[in-house]
Amino acid sequence: MTQALENTFETERWGRFEFRAKGPSGGNPFTDVQFSARFRDRHRVVEVDGFYDGAGEYGVRFMPDTLGHWSFETVSNVPELTGLKGTLEVVAPAPGNRGPVRVDQVYHFAYEDGTPFYPVGTTCYVWNHQGAEREEQTLQSLSQSPFNIIRMCVFPKHYDYNHNEPGHYAFEGSLEKGWDFARFNPAYWAHLERRIQDLQDLGIEADLILFHPYDRWGFSAMSRETDDLYLRYAMARLSSFRNIWWSLANEYDLMAEKTMQDWDRYFRIIQAFDPYQHLRSIHNWHSPEIHYRSNRHWYDHGKPWVTHASIQHADLHFVTEWREQFRKPVVVDECRYEGNLNHGWGNITAERMVECFWEGMAQGGYVTHGETFVHPEDIIWWSHGGTLHGESPERIQFLHNIMQEGPQLGPTGINFKWDAAAGGVDSEYYLVYFGTSRPAFRVLPLPEGVRFSIDLIDTWNMTITPLEGQFEGTCRVEMPGKPYQALRITKVKTGG
Amino acid sequence: MTQALENTFETERWGRFEFRAKGPSGGNPFTDVQFSARFRDRHRVVEVDGFYDGAGEYGVRFMPDTLGHWSFETVSNVPELTGLKGTLEVVAPAPGNRGPVRVDQVYHFAYEDGTPFYPVGTTCYVWNHQGAEREEQTLQSLSQSPFNIIRMCVFPKHYDYNHNEPGHYAFEGSLEKGWDFARFNPAYWAHLERRIQDLQDLGIEADLILFHPYDRWGFSAMSRETDDLYLRYAMARLSSFRNIWWSLANEYDLMAEKTMQDWDRYFRIIQAFDPYQHLRSIHNWHSPEIHYRSNRHWYDHGKPWVTHASIQHADLHFVTEWREQFRKPVVVDECRYEGNLNHGWGNITAERMVECFWEGMAQGGYVTHGETFVHPEDIIWWSHGGTLHGESPERIQFLHNIMQEGPQLGPTGINFKWDAAAGGVDSEYYLVYFGTSRPAFRVLPLPEGVRFSIDLIDTWNMTITPLEGQFEGTCRVEMPGKPYQALRITKVKTGG
Repeated sequence: MTQALENTFETERWGRFEFRAKGPSGGNPFTDVQFSARFRDRHRVVEVDGFYDGAGEYGVRFMPDTLGHWSFETVSNVPELTGLKGTLEVVAPAPGNRGPVRVDQVYHFAYEDGTPFYPVGTTCYVWNHQGAEREEQTLQSLSQSPFNIIRMCVFPKHYDYNHNEPGHYAFEGSLEKGWDFARFNPAYWAHLERRIQDLQDLGIEADLILFHPYDRWGFSAMSRETDDLYLRYAMARLSSFRNIWWSLANEYDLMAEKTMQDWDRYFRIIQAFDPYQHLRSIHNWHSPEIHYRSNRHWYDHGKPWVTHASIQHADLHFVTEWREQFRKPVVVDECRYEGNLNHGWGNITAERMVECFWEGMAQGGYVTHGETFVHPEDIIWWSHGGTLHGESPERIQFLHNIMQEGPQLGPTGINFKWDAAAGGVDSEYYLVYFGTSRPAFRVLPLPEGVRFSIDLIDTWNMTITPLEGQFEGTCRVEMPGKPYQALRITKVKTGG
Repeated sequence: MTQALENTFETERWGRFEFRAKGPSGGNPFTDVQFSARFRDRHRVVEVDGFYDGAGEYGVRFMPDTLGHWSFETVSNVPELTGLKGTLEVVAPAPGNRGPVRVDQVYHFAYEDGTPFYPVGTTCYVWNHQGAEREEQTLQSLSQSPFNIIRMCVFPKHYDYNHNEPGHYAFEGSLEKGWDFARFNPAYWAHLERRIQDLQDLGIEADLILFHPYDRWGFSAMSRETDDLYLRYAMARLSSFRNIWWSLANEYDLMAEKTMQDWDRYFRIIQAFDPYQHLRSIHNWHSPEIHYRSNRHWYDHGKPWVTHASIQHADLHFVTEWREQFRKPVVVDECRYEGNLNHGWGNITAERMVECFWEGMAQGGYVTHGETFVHPEDIIWWSHGGTLHGESPERIQFLHNIMQEGPQLGPTGINFKWDAAAGGVDSEYYLVYFGTSRPAFRVLPLPEGVRFSIDLIDTWNMTITPLEGQFEGTCRVEMPGKPYQALRITKVKTGG
């Protein structure tokens, strides 16, 4: 097989390398043909699944995470896909490529290159099922938005305001004739991949939702074998995208067909077949404090294969508790959406949406946006994408700028009192957010022996006003007595 | 003792009759002399404690609850106070006198004459310790306010903004020289009584707080014997005021000296020595959902001597749960106050204060107002009374009018969804409050076979707009898509 020696490729670190080969097209190549490749960097070997892409084409993708020379060799149960070899020269990443996002400092996130990542997410569940024109419009809107991660589904959505048919499906077949769950539809996957790449090009992470309950096609109630096959195929095709996060489900607890054991199994499959160990989470419907009669329980985010807690809950006050409970990053992925929908989850004010962000963030958690305004053509950002109409995104951008200027936040030893959400790094930095509480002044119990400067931040009007003087120990701060104020308290750097 | 036959008096039903007599002034009449009277209406006998009023004067008070002829005879351990007799002619109450307030229909209140009482309370903890001028000003403010019950303390308050000395004390002695806890100060009690009577004249109930923790005088840490003597004396002097409610404590759980057994004993003393069984409650500091690390528990409002739950909690969402838990009226006596204080309990907006009222009331609970604006002379309504500065009282009046026009509210079989607070009487009347949720329309699952009219209520702007047409079964209602709206849904009365 001297041919293989000629296969020399180049890709950047955390780029996506794809090797393609011709193979059998008869029978069912999706299930009959095993195809993978072993990528080797000296003594390290990474084995990655390949996939059948239709028309006798096979592909295998690889996201290298170190620079230098890699070699690879394919593995298959058919001769023509066995032992294909090549070398891969991994070069420095282009600007903007910082690698996949990882958990950082227990409760936070950072790109693999070490740059902190402060997620400010939004929700467009099935924007990728709305046709080229709407999808391009959504990308355009995203490019002008603060959002750096998006919650989106593999499968189409059936629900109020969501009755259109998608242009294509993940499997061969049709709703009328039934699905051949053993045969994937490569065009569908290529489209999904294109959209994930579009997001990557915008610097946006894709929190890809693998299952969800809002379904009229049967994708929420496939057999266990189909679910597992689907996950393996998704891993093979998608895990080489550095901007992928795996969300096992939106509102898993509304999927009556699935058991906790199923969810455990899905997590383990992803853990086993995503060579890059992208972030993994699962998102609940039920909120114990709202549906207090319910005896449902959340999936245990403490399980080892869960990298961060993805939570639906309207009360951000619990972020501190969840951090302590799970000892992982907490992302409140649904806290109700800015809008005026008939549904309670979609009719909060922009003020409240922004308040959720600040309240969660000040406690060292993260919060996700959504928007649900009644629209004459039922084009609603939360599901379809399109354009943004609300008043919260620019304020979320303002907050994101402040986050990027400061350290990752955690609980402080200073008691800023229960009517404020506060976090920081003790004796260095504090962010204290008052929400709808509106004190006319405040006595702050700052540490003795450290001098601080304080900025008064109007989180709604997006102004930052440095307070005169320096502050130390127990000190009084005059405040405007109106809602949505925050204090940024920063240790004064002493000259040297 | 023919003298007794000459003692013929007249009072109105639920009025306050007082019989006075001369007796010993030597020794300690407060503890040495027992004095009571037995009031008899045919076979019914009500024995009521009398009290020493200083200067050799003894009094015994009685609030008759039935019309007609009553006779009475005094009982004492000293001869000159023994066997004094008289008759009491009880006549119909004057307009405005509806008797004491009782629990009605398990979860509600009504005057003893059957008129529903919808408490809209306020808080002026020590308005009665501020001197004549301020106290008259407070009464004037109350007369122009919506409030029909006030939370107020027997003892003075020591706390931020509360450092003045009261004009008089409940006991003989002084802070410097110490108190004689076995001797009461009749002038102090006469003043308190005058203020309770002033409230009664305004049609306002007095929710009298018997103990509280904010103390520099020692009244929060008296001996058990003193506590019990104090309660007996208070019962003897005050229980004949028809507008009295007993609140055992403000924030009982901050009074470290007292045990749960103490609170039980106080309740039982009041139960035994208040002949009229005025309403009894106890008020917490700790909120489990806010101070979630705490292992404190609430006093069990389910105990038989507690007539209604008096709760401090910032989240009105739990009203339904508390109703079910205690099976008694729920009054959220502190849900934070309208104002701009440095303290979290005193810096919410008027919008939020009004929201608390509507949210609690729609669930069939009751809510209490308070106001805490920073003031150049530290005159703050919550503690001192004075004048009202906020924007909530007129909206509370608006709500009270609506409550009085409708029935007492309970949970309904209709699911108006979790983003609304709703209550009613099934198939007759529903009140649905949306708070900061702001749907642009709503699909209501009204009963079939009943026709309803619907009013759109803007609870902030205080407008009531009848919606066109009649409504039945599942129906769509257009709404303005802005916060603080409610729907009043009333069965259409058919002519006959």
